[in-house]
Amino acid sequence: MRGIVPQKVKGFRDITPGQNLLRQFIIDKATEVYRRFGFSRYDTPIMEYAECLGKYLPDADTVAQGVYSFKNPEEEPVFDTNGREMRDAENRVIMENHFVALRYDLTAPLARVYAESLWQQHLRGEIQGKTNLFRRYQYGPVFRFEAKLDPGRFREFWQMDFDTVGAEDVSADAENCMILSQALENIGLKRGTYLIKINNRKIVNGLLAYTGITDKEQEMAVMRVIDKLDKIGIDAVAKELGKGRVDEVSGAEIPGLNIEKKFVDIIIQFIKDFETRGTRAEVLAKLKAKPAFENDTYKEGVEELEKIDTILAQLGYNEEVAILDPGMVRGLGYYTGPIYEVESLQTYKDEKGRERRVGSICGGGRYDGLVENLLGVKVPATGASIGVDRLAELLTLTNQAQINNDGPVIIIAFDDSLMPLYQKTAMQLRAAGIDTEIYYGAKRGLKHQMAYADRNNSPLAVIIGSNEAEKGVATIKNLRLGKQLAESIADKNEWKNKVQQEVAIEKIAEEIKKILEK
Amino acid sequence: MRGIVPQKVKGFRDITPGQNLLRQFIIDKATEVYRRFGFSRYDTPIMEYAECLGKYLPDADTVAQGVYSFKNPEEEPVFDTNGREMRDAENRVIMENHFVALRYDLTAPLARVYAESLWQQHLRGEIQGKTNLFRRYQYGPVFRFEAKLDPGRFREFWQMDFDTVGAEDVSADAENCMILSQALENIGLKRGTYLIKINNRKIVNGLLAYTGITDKEQEMAVMRVIDKLDKIGIDAVAKELGKGRVDEVSGAEIPGLNIEKKFVDIIIQFIKDFETRGTRAEVLAKLKAKPAFENDTYKEGVEELEKIDTILAQLGYNEEVAILDPGMVRGLGYYTGPIYEVESLQTYKDEKGRERRVGSICGGGRYDGLVENLLGVKVPATGASIGVDRLAELLTLTNQAQINNDGPVIIIAFDDSLMPLYQKTAMQLRAAGIDTEIYYGAKRGLKHQMAYADRNNSPLAVIIGSNEAEKGVATIKNLRLGKQLAESIADKNEWKNKVQQEVAIEKIAEEIKKILEK
Repeated sequence: MRGIVPQKVKGFRDITPGQNLLRQFIIDKATEVYRRFGFSRYDTPIMEYAECLGKYLPDADTVAQGVYSFKNPEEEPVFDTNGREMRDAENRVIMENHFVALRYDLTAPLARVYAESLWQQHLRGEIQGKTNLFRRYQYGPVFRFEAKLDPGRFREFWQMDFDTVGAEDVSADAENCMILSQALENIGLKRGTYLIKINNRKIVNGLLAYTGITDKEQEMAVMRVIDKLDKIGIDAVAKELGKGRVDEVSGAEIPGLNIEKKFVDIIIQFIKDFETRGTRAEVLAKLKAKPAFENDTYKEGVEELEKIDTILAQLGYNEEVAILDPGMVRGLGYYTGPIYEVESLQTYKDEKGRERRVGSICGGGRYDGLVENLLGVKVPATGASIGVDRLAELLTLTNQAQINNDGPVIIIAFDDSLMPLYQKTAMQLRAAGIDTEIYYGAKRGLKHQMAYADRNNSPLAVIIGSNEAEKGVATIKNLRLGKQLAESIADKNEWKNKVQQEVAIEKIAEEIKKILEK
Repeated sequence: MRGIVPQKVKGFRDITPGQNLLRQFIIDKATEVYRRFGFSRYDTPIMEYAECLGKYLPDADTVAQGVYSFKNPEEEPVFDTNGREMRDAENRVIMENHFVALRYDLTAPLARVYAESLWQQHLRGEIQGKTNLFRRYQYGPVFRFEAKLDPGRFREFWQMDFDTVGAEDVSADAENCMILSQALENIGLKRGTYLIKINNRKIVNGLLAYTGITDKEQEMAVMRVIDKLDKIGIDAVAKELGKGRVDEVSGAEIPGLNIEKKFVDIIIQFIKDFETRGTRAEVLAKLKAKPAFENDTYKEGVEELEKIDTILAQLGYNEEVAILDPGMVRGLGYYTGPIYEVESLQTYKDEKGRERRVGSICGGGRYDGLVENLLGVKVPATGASIGVDRLAELLTLTNQAQINNDGPVIIIAFDDSLMPLYQKTAMQLRAAGIDTEIYYGAKRGLKHQMAYADRNNSPLAVIIGSNEAEKGVATIKNLRLGKQLAESIADKNEWKNKVQQEVAIEKIAEEIKKILEK
């Protein structure tokens, strides 16, 4: 036999009870806010046809790159562009195993949902005029096959998205920023510990058009290079836009985009001009003063930012919450208008004592072309996403994760013949609303049972031996207090007196409730 | 271009807001009970190494059958049975793309979790004596590629499991049955509308051993045939155990297991003897009276059922909740001891008016060999699972789904220039805890906006035109009341007076709260 030892697939992980409570806490708190703004929960499958998801990941030139994709075991018809089954020379329907993929985000499946509904309407001859409004939130795992996985990153992680499909008005984008802010604060982040950075793809596209770059592929290539700014610095960005560079650490040759030097200079100067963070009014003034403002796309982009700024200001979202950041572009391929990213400003010390930041915890923006790419019908859409696992990491690293991770009361299995009594006692406690476990493990030593209780954060243990059973009493051991007092009280008997008490079994539920409520 | 139209992968589905609320309701109610019994939530990835999941699905002879399985894009080392990396003649580590699979249930991944932990302990030289206790609950999607998909069934569906690994005592199995009962009743099922059927694989194995069948593969093949009893009937089962049969509907030839007729007769007689449901005491007496009772395995199986019966009786779980059903075997390959299945007794009428039942809604049992198969270490384990989606279907079909599917209050977008006022009004309502949406759709006709509100179950709409804005008032339209009165009140003005009211915008939150609380 040859094979693999029992283990998780590389890049995947299990989620412990404490991590689950924290993840659920984040989801519940964000759900409150998403619903407050009128979104309903809508779920899509884990797996989709690869073609329906499209290729929008950073650094993904083909559908397969960055995505877990495989051939569906089922043969299905192939369709032509009119949605008709294709047939061979003998008029048989052409069958194929389509490629399917694990979803890499929750936005591409949403576009499929909307396009599928439009397609059905089209088949029924119902499409006329503008498109319907559809708003939903969704959360769950997404999957990325990143060939080189950074430490602490995973290939399966949770996102929590809300989106508005069918809305042209950038008011919806302003609202998206407010929702992110309210959700983060509802989760417990203090104002001033995070910052929403807003930009507009139209500004970048307009600037590039001004330098003569209008090819979609090249536009996107430039975005991806600029997106690396925080990681590689401005000089490396300049080189990657131009003739390429050699990576200092790995020595790898990174090819450049071969953009003419005078145009690279314009792009770099633009980024440099906005390196120092100004007020939103200052940034808007600077953007308007640029010669690129003559370009329509660029101008539209600035005007949209202006509108978003006005709404945010009117509703009390000042520079402490949201700034304009023309150097922020985001790596995903599908954005077409306003984009936003939330940066955590909090620091923590890593294991070597170095100050660290978690970085980006949310992102979003407008993607008016996503449904169009699937179906040819232009549908405006905008939304944003909380990186649930990234946020959980932030809360943990900065000691802000306030969850109650108490385990159940444990009934020690002292004597097998008393099992019926243990079960009745457990039933009493459960009926009183107390989470209670009977120890069923094969290792029966008291030490093992106590170690188990400790691993599970049990607040107290119930011990009933045959003597106690005869008297109708139980010993309650307060494990939480026991831990607290273990250091301050050296005398074993004194410690025992404080930590243990004998109670009548018939009154055990009320006694335990009293202790737990302390 | 050729490809596929926008659609879900065949066999997969989207989950609407109402379905999500119901699914979440089931999960929340079951969570309460699972935690009450001391389980903590532990999650595993959607994807696992196929080898780690094993092959336990009914009708699955190879890893790939019934499972979405594909080659991992990443090359990884191959290990020998001692967990050492294998090397080729030139001492290079042998690399391979391992097969990975979407999990087909939540039990096989749990065995991986436990085996992985044991393996790590083994590497540290820590394993000694009996194994540790581990209890967890988990919920989420599982995936089955069933080549022939029954109508209304899906290839991605949700389960909610709880398991106890490391417990030998069948008290844990009795507890599993109580947990299922309490969870179902907490979700809203009335006692008497469901029935837990309990059996023991040891009884079936013992009976087969008595007829000379001890080969594991053949044992399992027999179980799979008996598992079809409800679908195909006793005569077809007899034929499939013997020389095979021709399916009446499809005309397909179904090969038999070729068991000797006298042994087939013993098995069939056994099933027939228990067709009429007796009390648990009656069934136990009948089981003991069988000649197979001389067989140790059979005897052990009966004694375990006896113990489970005693515990259930002591704690008040009588025949209305749980019966013994020696003809029930379950199709999954990994069970080794007590098994249980919950049948819904409720009927509903299908679209043709025929009486129907949903059938099995929960299942579980003991699987002492699952970790052993991965690692060679014997680890007792037992657990059960609620079929979340099946239960949601039951609640829906029998009109027991009591969820509040109200949408948000909607602020009609009447006049674009008033958007700031709409946003401030929305902010007021949200601050008062009222879910509120501003209509951002591109279709601005009032009819469209009202149709949208209706689709989303919005209870009321807020209308502010420029006249109203000047006066500082808003019109509130009670959509819920409007629907109720639409039939009883013919006069349009009277209806309008009842359904609409004008309020001062500054007091709008309290007014709306009053209406919503009615």
